[in-house]
Amino acid sequence: MDVFDRLKAEAADDWQSYVSHAFVRRMGDGTLSQGAFRAYLVQDYLFLIQFARAYALAAYKSRTVADITAAQAGLAAILEETALHVRLCGRWGLSPADLEATAEHSTTVAYTRFVLDCGAAGDLLDLHAALAPCVIGYAEIGLALAPDGVAALADHPYRDWIAEYAGDTYQGVAAAARAHLDDLAARTMTERRFPDLARIFGAASRLEADFWQMGLDAA
Amino acid sequence: MDVFDRLKAEAADDWQSYVSHAFVRRMGDGTLSQGAFRAYLVQDYLFLIQFARAYALAAYKSRTVADITAAQAGLAAILEETALHVRLCGRWGLSPADLEATAEHSTTVAYTRFVLDCGAAGDLLDLHAALAPCVIGYAEIGLALAPDGVAALADHPYRDWIAEYAGDTYQGVAAAARAHLDDLAARTMTERRFPDLARIFGAASRLEADFWQMGLDAA
Amino acid sequence: MDVFDRLKAEAADDWQSYVSHAFVRRMGDGTLSQGAFRAYLVQDYLFLIQFARAYALAAYKSRTVADITAAQAGLAAILEETALHVRLCGRWGLSPADLEATAEHSTTVAYTRFVLDCGAAGDLLDLHAALAPCVIGYAEIGLALAPDGVAALADHPYRDWIAEYAGDTYQGVAAAARAHLDDLAARTMTERRFPDLARIFGAASRLEADFWQMGLDAA
Amino acid sequence: MDVFDRLKAEAADDWQSYVSHAFVRRMGDGTLSQGAFRAYLVQDYLFLIQFARAYALAAYKSRTVADITAAQAGLAAILEETALHVRLCGRWGLSPADLEATAEHSTTVAYTRFVLDCGAAGDLLDLHAALAPCVIGYAEIGLALAPDGVAALADHPYRDWIAEYAGDTYQGVAAAARAHLDDLAARTMTERRFPDLARIFGAASRLEADFWQMGLDAA
Repeated sequence: MDVFDRLKAEAADDWQSYVSHAFVRRMGDGTLSQGAFRAYLVQDYLFLIQFARAYALAAYKSRTVADITAAQAGLAAILEETALHVRLCGRWGLSPADLEATAEHSTTVAYTRFVLDCGAAGDLLDLHAALAPCVIGYAEIGLALAPDGVAALADHPYRDWIAEYAGDTYQGVAAAARAHLDDLAARTMTERRFPDLARIFGAASRLEADFWQMGLDAA
Repeated sequence: MDVFDRLKAEAADDWQSYVSHAFVRRMGDGTLSQGAFRAYLVQDYLFLIQFARAYALAAYKSRTVADITAAQAGLAAILEETALHVRLCGRWGLSPADLEATAEHSTTVAYTRFVLDCGAAGDLLDLHAALAPCVIGYAEIGLALAPDGVAALADHPYRDWIAEYAGDTYQGVAAAARAHLDDLAARTMTERRFPDLARIFGAASRLEADFWQMGLDAA
Repeated sequence: MDVFDRLKAEAADDWQSYVSHAFVRRMGDGTLSQGAFRAYLVQDYLFLIQFARAYALAAYKSRTVADITAAQAGLAAILEETALHVRLCGRWGLSPADLEATAEHSTTVAYTRFVLDCGAAGDLLDLHAALAPCVIGYAEIGLALAPDGVAALADHPYRDWIAEYAGDTYQGVAAAARAHLDDLAARTMTERRFPDLARIFGAASRLEADFWQMGLDAA
Repeated sequence: MDVFDRLKAEAADDWQSYVSHAFVRRMGDGTLSQGAFRAYLVQDYLFLIQFARAYALAAYKSRTVADITAAQAGLAAILEETALHVRLCGRWGLSPADLEATAEHSTTVAYTRFVLDCGAAGDLLDLHAALAPCVIGYAEIGLALAPDGVAALADHPYRDWIAEYAGDTYQGVAAAARAHLDDLAARTMTERRFPDLARIFGAASRLEADFWQMGLDAA
């Protein structure tokens, strides 16, 4: 059982409220309204700007060239992840400038600033425990929504999104994040810290569930 | 027109959504349910813990003994402000340990971490622009709810709360915060910065309105 | 063997270079020139301003009311410690404003910013490992320079300084810091972290030795 | 007169102590001992690790995709700059691991942590004012040491170093940093702030001079 699985088990209810949220289920069966998806995706773009800052914070908090370089790679991956958003939003006539000018919803503020504050107040393990529901959870959700593989999605209305997170590239990012969490825990996780980390992980999972709910409520 | 009035004028709608929120009006006319008030007050205690951290951040970001000492005084004032909460919550049988063990609502997370991040990402003026809706706004609300003075509140159901913020001590705190904002602005506010500060102030006001709404929704 | 003793043992040479520095020995036998002491004390005042910021950083990085309150007490203790400096420097005709206007020596910059950065990059344990040589070391040095007690110092030229750090109040501060280090370590120190903490502690001890040397060189 | 020239003029003595330091002059006329250069270069590698963290801090403190991306480019440029050090140190049989295992000299600690703290305590302009003596100063020094162009250096003993900083790529980096400083100042520099920025710039220039002196003292 790796650290990620321990955190999931400890915060099982919070985790389920996130990965099995109605938004996710409806995206999976294709019944999610486009309005809900669009509201979500615009906020997710704003979300990623703050997540890029979180990886910059990880680089700042690093002490070795290897750790700085790894965090920089995470930052670069996030800036690339926004390309999906720009492409999809472009179909609706929204430019990156339109996206950046949109006000952040309070659920966007809540999760992103919570993550950033976990990093500022704590160490790299606290920061990555707060990032994990997003980084690793999206890979789990992507796989769950493509049970027969990405090719089988055919003309699924949310094919682009599912393919992005079910795809090999993103699965590799999530596997690396999981290994990184184990590495950080081996270095700095006492058993007495585990409940604090599980609290961070659980709170972040609830904030992710709120973020899905924001999409549903907006439609 | 001091900086606070300029910020209020620039973010007028956000400001009104906060200071004239239904929660405030019902607290004023005494129709607010005790359940709503209690939900609010428990979260406000958790809120103040993070606000204490925000004043600690201000002390950390200061460069002179005078600025460090002023921020420390703010931190001490907040720790004292929690005494009101402990007293009122104690009447409902809640101890400080009970309060600290309560999970933060996402609206609590949103405003508090937004403020902390404004301070970490920006300078002292950014931090205080984000704090102002709370620090100075509560004084404005307190006065509005005690139009005939604190003595006239008699057996108003929310007399303790209103008297705290309408009282001379808190009014003095707010006046000092207002003067401090002017002082910081005189040192570091270019006109090109003003729209950014107004955006911070407006966002913080909306997050305060969400916080009141959380109280109503909980009842 | 508590954590402080383990750190001292691991960084034994660096520790000795600090607590047995020629500046300390000459202060002890009264042969230290007043010029050297004065150069040291003026820089130590600037040093304490940054140490106050380090305790503010500890409060900011705290998550509970108890930890915030403890850090605030540390901050208050440091602001009081400056009273010794103001009193002694006042005898030489230097006001607090004169002291604050003095440029920081590079050794002052080195130690203070190193401590602050340990705290910003790491967690509370990293921060307190960097603070320990100063906070706890001064108590050890104070005791060593008053082997027959403070009363026996009579008209020792550095009686004020030695009495401050050998006195019961400061000895209590240092004992509390030592217990706090053990508490933090019990919560968050894996054995794999110990060498990193010892490196921080050793580097901080060397920077303290450089600080004494700065005093000697200035005379 | 751009902001960089204003800062240089205001801190003229500190600036001269840095760009005209004996280490620079001897590097220019080829009389600098290899031991001094080597001591400098090993510490400069450790210095760049911290400077990479400073650019990560700039990305963390940014609010727009454009600013995050620009800071990330700066971080990447620094990681590339270390290639010069790895190449030159490799000639002496030193691996990157050897370099990272070397203890930081106190002058290395002083300048790097000063820069990081300016960024943590202040805003992006404070951070870049502290970085400027290094980023822009090295371009000025490089040009001064290659008055007849890089090609004319022929078999100059410090040809590699001089060519790096006198070369078009680095000159472009410095020109961009200068323009960035003007842009930040246009956004956030009041005239009342200028003396504070000049103090930061002057202190950073003195710490750079100390860094050269460390090289001379080591030989």
